[in-house]
Amino acid sequence: MTYFAQEIDVAVIGAGHAGIEAGLAAARLGCRTVVFTINLDAVGNCPCNPSIGGTAKGHLVREIDALGGEMGKTADECTIQSRMLNLGKGPAVHSLRAQIDRSLYARVMKHKLELCDNLELRQAEIIDLKPIDGRWEVTTRLGAVYRAAAVILCTGTFLGGKIFVGEVSFESGPDGMFPSAFLPDRLRELGISLRRFKTGTPARVLRASIDYANLEVQQGDEPVIPFSYDTEEELTNKEVCYISWTNAETHRVIRDNISRSPLYSGLIEGVGPRYCPSIEDKVIRFPDKDRHQLFIEPCGLETEEMYLQGMSSSLPEEVQVKFYRTIPGLEHVQLMRSAYAIEYDCCDPLQLDAALEFRDFPGLYGAGQFNGSSGYEEAAAQGLVAGINAARRVQGKKRLILDRAGSYIGTLIDDLVTKGVTDPYRMMTSRSEYRLILRQDNADERLTPIGREIGLISDGRWEKFRKKQSEKAAELRRVSGTTLPPTEALNNVLVSRGTTPVSTGIKLSELLKRPQISYADLTEVDSHRPELSQAVQESVEIQLKYEGYIKRQLADIEEMRRVERKVLPKNIDYREIRGLRLEAAEKLELVRPENLGQAGRVSGVSPADISVLMIWLASKEERGT
Amino acid sequence: MTYFAQEIDVAVIGAGHAGIEAGLAAARLGCRTVVFTINLDAVGNCPCNPSIGGTAKGHLVREIDALGGEMGKTADECTIQSRMLNLGKGPAVHSLRAQIDRSLYARVMKHKLELCDNLELRQAEIIDLKPIDGRWEVTTRLGAVYRAAAVILCTGTFLGGKIFVGEVSFESGPDGMFPSAFLPDRLRELGISLRRFKTGTPARVLRASIDYANLEVQQGDEPVIPFSYDTEEELTNKEVCYISWTNAETHRVIRDNISRSPLYSGLIEGVGPRYCPSIEDKVIRFPDKDRHQLFIEPCGLETEEMYLQGMSSSLPEEVQVKFYRTIPGLEHVQLMRSAYAIEYDCCDPLQLDAALEFRDFPGLYGAGQFNGSSGYEEAAAQGLVAGINAARRVQGKKRLILDRAGSYIGTLIDDLVTKGVTDPYRMMTSRSEYRLILRQDNADERLTPIGREIGLISDGRWEKFRKKQSEKAAELRRVSGTTLPPTEALNNVLVSRGTTPVSTGIKLSELLKRPQISYADLTEVDSHRPELSQAVQESVEIQLKYEGYIKRQLADIEEMRRVERKVLPKNIDYREIRGLRLEAAEKLELVRPENLGQAGRVSGVSPADISVLMIWLASKEERGT
Repeated sequence: MTYFAQEIDVAVIGAGHAGIEAGLAAARLGCRTVVFTINLDAVGNCPCNPSIGGTAKGHLVREIDALGGEMGKTADECTIQSRMLNLGKGPAVHSLRAQIDRSLYARVMKHKLELCDNLELRQAEIIDLKPIDGRWEVTTRLGAVYRAAAVILCTGTFLGGKIFVGEVSFESGPDGMFPSAFLPDRLRELGISLRRFKTGTPARVLRASIDYANLEVQQGDEPVIPFSYDTEEELTNKEVCYISWTNAETHRVIRDNISRSPLYSGLIEGVGPRYCPSIEDKVIRFPDKDRHQLFIEPCGLETEEMYLQGMSSSLPEEVQVKFYRTIPGLEHVQLMRSAYAIEYDCCDPLQLDAALEFRDFPGLYGAGQFNGSSGYEEAAAQGLVAGINAARRVQGKKRLILDRAGSYIGTLIDDLVTKGVTDPYRMMTSRSEYRLILRQDNADERLTPIGREIGLISDGRWEKFRKKQSEKAAELRRVSGTTLPPTEALNNVLVSRGTTPVSTGIKLSELLKRPQISYADLTEVDSHRPELSQAVQESVEIQLKYEGYIKRQLADIEEMRRVERKVLPKNIDYREIRGLRLEAAEKLELVRPENLGQAGRVSGVSPADISVLMIWLASKEERGT
Repeated sequence: MTYFAQEIDVAVIGAGHAGIEAGLAAARLGCRTVVFTINLDAVGNCPCNPSIGGTAKGHLVREIDALGGEMGKTADECTIQSRMLNLGKGPAVHSLRAQIDRSLYARVMKHKLELCDNLELRQAEIIDLKPIDGRWEVTTRLGAVYRAAAVILCTGTFLGGKIFVGEVSFESGPDGMFPSAFLPDRLRELGISLRRFKTGTPARVLRASIDYANLEVQQGDEPVIPFSYDTEEELTNKEVCYISWTNAETHRVIRDNISRSPLYSGLIEGVGPRYCPSIEDKVIRFPDKDRHQLFIEPCGLETEEMYLQGMSSSLPEEVQVKFYRTIPGLEHVQLMRSAYAIEYDCCDPLQLDAALEFRDFPGLYGAGQFNGSSGYEEAAAQGLVAGINAARRVQGKKRLILDRAGSYIGTLIDDLVTKGVTDPYRMMTSRSEYRLILRQDNADERLTPIGREIGLISDGRWEKFRKKQSEKAAELRRVSGTTLPPTEALNNVLVSRGTTPVSTGIKLSELLKRPQISYADLTEVDSHRPELSQAVQESVEIQLKYEGYIKRQLADIEEMRRVERKVLPKNIDYREIRGLRLEAAEKLELVRPENLGQAGRVSGVSPADISVLMIWLASKEERGT
């Protein structure tokens, strides 16, 4: 028996990392929003590793924050150890990564949802979803019917979730939650194409059962750099992590038991994440590697559970205990939770447009693992964009489409909806053609003006951003206009840093362009330097040092955007375009790209096909049709 | 496929309030203990009200603490509001009750288990249990087989759990956890008799959706009195509660929809707690009452969820929303979690002895809701006794049997195993014949020496206890030996308190016996009074004021204990005892009481039957058989 519960603007199904950002964005933009979760005790849960960020993922968190999302702020509030990864490489790949207190993170996020205006957080399993009179009817297991203008599917690994540990399997969401068992069939009935993906997690083990004597300690970086441009409080490292390695014996135990893996025995149909394989995958796929690294990470300040990063597995528990105990430091390890794989339903993201809306179902959006991605950060990024677009749809505003040149978020979404996925998509810096532009340090420059225009950036935050920008501009002017005389003091600095001394005056900007010279090096000789934040110094320095490369990428971006402006009509019939190869026509029919740029990235579409399309478009314009 | 995991001393199945105390006690007494939980994120969960203590339950918490259990300490660490109930009545019924932060309570308890020596906390569902060679084989869902000397069943509402909300029902544990679905059949196969009980919980609602304007505020008491004799830190009240009432409209909505209640439609077979009925039960069973009180209580400091005490329901969600919104203050209330009833399997506790061990299954113990009780405190009390007894069994020590005269814990267990239960058993002060002795203020006097002997009271705690006892004795001597002259100052005090002035000297003890006079009243005239803690003052005062009653109860207790010392042989065949009525013989066969006292409390056994038994015992002793 159902009953009518409420007329609302936006229904968000799921309160994981995607659902949280979707719900907060829609509600903050003024939409009456309900976020549904199967279990209120699992809001903002981190069922896999207790960390936020990492290579390219740290960029996503910065971008989410720059646009007005919540993940960065909450991660900062819950950081127990922070590191800037890849500092040995160029600034494009510097990435922030923080260990977080898992339980605190979930509590903080849940509380933010509870306190958010226009947002109702409701424990309810959604069992039906249907379009009625231009709106969506969302039905809960206890019979409540909500009518919403827009629905965002953020079902994560709950949708048709099934857990595997060796020969044992059962229907379940992550971390022992109930799966969403009714919704997959309803989505299929609607005509949405679903597929099975899988992911996995390692065991959680007891802190005191580890022998730390021979483990390498991994300290956090000091000072801790926050994710959020809003965080002003000084953060500290509260825990350390440890590093260990597998060995021949580990690999032998795994190989001896590989037939008992549900992946290898065929029990699991779902496709796992290529860049986050289980330890048995690594052992089998890289038989020449004689060891694999693992990180031992605390799950929080108030728990003795430790996470074994890099050691996810779906082997039987018996085998898990055996192989974990072959690892130095883990000889007597006590498992608290066993590793498992989880298989779940997700959609083929080629059904979505760049606003994350289903092309065939106006008002229906997808975000996160439901769209075929993996990772908390990828999920949150999509949730934010879906939430913004759902709200803008409700309010009759233009869609927000982030392009590849402006953000990793845009790159992520473009990859998903243009190229589709064959396995859970993970963000990597190599996925961007513009990674020297898409740095974690300039996410605010790239996205905060957009966030402000949308309405997610507060006045205070906007003022802060503008101040930073004007400080940066002033400093760039100053260093370009200041000439240092060839003093002994200056030349001492230059020689000590291994670069050539000067005999005539030299501009500060020229000095900063030298790869050996940093802002800090010039402190003594640059006596008129104003007080500058670390962020402004970093920004100025990168801009000067990489000026040439940056200019080149900016030119590329201009070219790309020119092509992106060539919009492809919605009703185009690709099979009627003469000269277009059949495969290209079929793929273009499937993806229905929004512009020529996106068309060029559809797999199976060649540069020659794009030329044909360009000519067709030009002649169409000439004909005025 | 199963594998041998470990040889252990004690396996505890479940990590709720019973399992926690059982596990900690067994481990602290030196047993290698594993506590199994279906979900590590639900250890120490409070699925019903966010409070500990209350009438008679507060006594249990004090007793648990006095014996060396954990509940009181943790409740103190998580108190957000505290009150001493029934202060308007006699000291026998004074009971401490604290609102606790639900999430913090669970985290603190889990962390204590994680840090406890000899204790392993393991996420695993137990699916099989069988006796083999004098030990127990416990099998997990992932195939691990543990061999234990003793097993304690603390399955709460997880065992065969099934949730009901109106016409909707599904298998589930509390708070959206998976139920223990395999174990009930295994227990039945063993020959354990199970029954269905049920309990329920009200909705959780959003703090900001309540209109507080016309609600009565309930403040906590200052200063906050802790549960634990160990707590030295000063506790504070951090939240307030609110009071509201149902009305005719509430009752009309409920009556109009009563046919949709799974209780009334017959969907629920389980028997609910008589003293904690759902609101629909109250409305139907007491048609003359035109209103029922409810308390609106915060669930914690970091959440906006509020609990509606007194308003549990299994009516359909639609009806819930309707009737909650008829209540003043809740006109626009937003439900975050719906109320539900949960049905579960539990044992007939007549199968247990007073050590909570199954008479027919040596080494198998039950505790908490599994034994047919309701309430966190009742569960914890039994868990503690079962844990102690399991450990003592493993170590070849004598069982710990707490009698009715020494504690509510003893009363609770005696009631369960002697009288059995027809509905979930709740502790009440009226269940004790000795309630003037079994006060919350003297739980330490009654039980700490026992806890010390068992090994659960630390040296520091023992010293503190002895110091308090000697201070009390010294003070009793002092007030009995100190005579105050009939000064004007003294008589002013007496008259101002409404009692007669004195014309000759009077002993301090005589003054304190007067009901109108408290320790505080005499502060000015009792100039040689030493520094005394509030607890010692209270203790001395109660002892003096109630001396006569206490003496009478102590005499009763002596008589009771005399009868309790008349042990009944284990192998007695009641049907062969001439003169015993058939019903009595049958009931005695079923319960198999341990002594004449317990036999007298078996329902269906008359005083005449006890006389027959007494004569039979005496003649048996004479015969020397």
